[in-house]
Amino acid sequence: MSFLDSEFFQPLYEALETGQPDEIRAAVSSFNAADLADFIEHTSDEENETGLSLLQSLPVDQQAKIFGYIGPEKQRIFARLIPNRELAGIATNMSADERADFFNILDENQQHALFQSLASREREDLRRLASFEEGTAGALMTSDYAVVSSGMTVASALALLRNTAPDKETIYQAYVVDNDHRLIGVISLRNLITSAPGAMVDSLMATGLVSTHTHTEQEEVARLISRYDLLALPIIDDDNRLVGIVTYDDAMDVAEAEATEDMHKGATVGRLETGLKTASPFSLYRSRVQWLVILVFANIFTGASIDHFQNTISSHIALLFFMPLLIASGGNAGAQSATLMVRGLATGDVTARDWGMLLGKDLLVATGLGLTMAAAVSVVGLYKAGPQIATVVAISMIVVVLIGSTIGMLLPFLLDKLKFDPATASMPLITTIADVSGVLIYFTIASMVLDLS
Amino acid sequence: MSFLDSEFFQPLYEALETGQPDEIRAAVSSFNAADLADFIEHTSDEENETGLSLLQSLPVDQQAKIFGYIGPEKQRIFARLIPNRELAGIATNMSADERADFFNILDENQQHALFQSLASREREDLRRLASFEEGTAGALMTSDYAVVSSGMTVASALALLRNTAPDKETIYQAYVVDNDHRLIGVISLRNLITSAPGAMVDSLMATGLVSTHTHTEQEEVARLISRYDLLALPIIDDDNRLVGIVTYDDAMDVAEAEATEDMHKGATVGRLETGLKTASPFSLYRSRVQWLVILVFANIFTGASIDHFQNTISSHIALLFFMPLLIASGGNAGAQSATLMVRGLATGDVTARDWGMLLGKDLLVATGLGLTMAAAVSVVGLYKAGPQIATVVAISMIVVVLIGSTIGMLLPFLLDKLKFDPATASMPLITTIADVSGVLIYFTIASMVLDLS
Repeated sequence: MSFLDSEFFQPLYEALETGQPDEIRAAVSSFNAADLADFIEHTSDEENETGLSLLQSLPVDQQAKIFGYIGPEKQRIFARLIPNRELAGIATNMSADERADFFNILDENQQHALFQSLASREREDLRRLASFEEGTAGALMTSDYAVVSSGMTVASALALLRNTAPDKETIYQAYVVDNDHRLIGVISLRNLITSAPGAMVDSLMATGLVSTHTHTEQEEVARLISRYDLLALPIIDDDNRLVGIVTYDDAMDVAEAEATEDMHKGATVGRLETGLKTASPFSLYRSRVQWLVILVFANIFTGASIDHFQNTISSHIALLFFMPLLIASGGNAGAQSATLMVRGLATGDVTARDWGMLLGKDLLVATGLGLTMAAAVSVVGLYKAGPQIATVVAISMIVVVLIGSTIGMLLPFLLDKLKFDPATASMPLITTIADVSGVLIYFTIASMVLDLS
Repeated sequence: MSFLDSEFFQPLYEALETGQPDEIRAAVSSFNAADLADFIEHTSDEENETGLSLLQSLPVDQQAKIFGYIGPEKQRIFARLIPNRELAGIATNMSADERADFFNILDENQQHALFQSLASREREDLRRLASFEEGTAGALMTSDYAVVSSGMTVASALALLRNTAPDKETIYQAYVVDNDHRLIGVISLRNLITSAPGAMVDSLMATGLVSTHTHTEQEEVARLISRYDLLALPIIDDDNRLVGIVTYDDAMDVAEAEATEDMHKGATVGRLETGLKTASPFSLYRSRVQWLVILVFANIFTGASIDHFQNTISSHIALLFFMPLLIASGGNAGAQSATLMVRGLATGDVTARDWGMLLGKDLLVATGLGLTMAAAVSVVGLYKAGPQIATVVAISMIVVVLIGSTIGMLLPFLLDKLKFDPATASMPLITTIADVSGVLIYFTIASMVLDLS
């Protein structure tokens, strides 16, 4: 996938070269807003304004749609380059949630200037949406939705929809609220159109809606939308009043971002504001350095453990050959268990109360894995160092895999219980813990067996 | 999230105890199909039929909706317990894609019996949908969509929709095809309703639709739907004929499943057919054992490398103290780089051609990380083993981190180039490669510096 292929955008480049507004408009019409945003983003900066002039030549509703697809960094740059009045026009035509996101990335002066240029309706909306904490349903929701009142007839509901939401796609589904704007149901446009004009909305609407609060975490919002196959999830405030909806497309973006964050955490990479491609070297450094340094110090324990067994090692130097293999196996088995648990907890497939059942299953699986790996390593052990060391290595392998797997399995649950993100049970952390345990187990068993003989 | 909380389902349990159909119906109506499916799934098996009887007591369209949410393993069991005619009724009322998925998990006898009981329209549909390779757009798509012909007037298009798709939610968006059923545009119900009855569909429809082929991989389908914020993606065959659509809710499920698979791969866990909670110990064992054994043998190289430096180690036994720390650091830095690249490639944030730019950035970042970690480890080195070994350890740290990070960064690109899944560059694999390099680098530098002095 490379949308910036010159081939893909060839018609647009050619039209731009002619400079003819008609040709440009024709070329633009064959591209999707998301692709045009990519084109504009990559052909304009403080020096080059090819893309930006293209954007400015379009009708304002199209400008607004494309602007919503542009990344935050470029949005901030464009906000400086586009005259204030024009920018206000774009902002007014953006969807409410995208407008609030855009507003939130501007610096204080830009925010002030934009705010002044907006009409009072958009100002009010912006003030409300921009005030919710990032990462919550409130920050994710939009105020673009259709609403009708309980007690209305079908005819008056239809008239209301025609007046208030003529352009909205969300007109297909209208939420029904009572006098205090509390959410009580939902009714589809199809249902309204096919019912008698005098029928009451209350008797036609569907009740028992899934909804959630403004302070619900965005992962949970995405999970609800995915679980119930919703087009949109209504969001209510503490008094059960309908204040917004989160649409499925935003839920998809959240789910993707959360999966990325969990994967990064699994390799001790911290939060990145932007994608890998646009991230600055310094922000990458900052996201990676913390855990690496912590793990350097954690690994001193492994070194100290080896140090502790210097005598055993000196007199049986062949033991060293099997050390990396044994401690790596504990870490690898642990990483597997931890990843299964972390992802299971993240998707809701497993819950905290399942730990007992899962521990039992994990012990069974780990025993099987340990036996298989012990068998594999015995062959090498016998060939390389004789039956005695082969025995030590085989026994150690079983114990190391069991312990590693159990740590990997339990740590995510423990972190969850302590209100940390289970994904903090990253593979490097599990590996480090398994390393120390591996060294201790291996050389303890070795000194027991070899000293006995 | 525990939807099987007895508290959550209390009203249902209570209604079931009374045995009154009216009370049961009232209780059922307050639950969502996805939740009812969970309840039914967890309260019925070959011995206990509480949930199954509940399912069978509902109207067939509701049965079908709930049945679509039930997991494949329970679906297979229920298919044995529900009389054939009733099952055919459920299957007929399921959405076309869910029906095809259900059909595909049945054994041959069950498939045959079900097939015989279906009407010819559903048979034909099933034969077609069930024939696509799993993991492709064809296997994911449904044939439940509204379609009108090019050349129709608005009035005849509306009449057609009323006749063919009165119940479908997809009526809100109708695809426009030509005489050969080739996809040429899309028109919204809103647009049809607000236009003059005599106007031509061709003049009103939107063109330039995003669509894809039946053989497109499902990850790509999910990516297109997410990128263009689509409700549904039309699927065409090799002759550009419209043959189905994939809806956003299926795309969300695919994206989640793909993220899970990538995370599992990142820890060398193979494909699991079901969730962690329902997976059998043996299937878990099978998904984990292969790579663990491969890595046991790979780790022999690390052992052999240590073996090779026995003399250096014996004469400077203090070197051992820093070994785990150094080789772990290379692996950890490598795991970070690999994860960033694998996820970047999976989300489409980076593409194969970006490798040069990203390598440059990664080298810069890794140098910074290496210097920081060398500074940290020097302090310990000075205190523990004097300036000479501290120097060796610090230099080794920089080189190890640079090499580890570079391997982690390049391996996913290399795998991608060789048509393997980049996610095969799992952390245990990176760690193992980094281990061998770490040992070689450390002891080579040590023997150079310490032998010179």
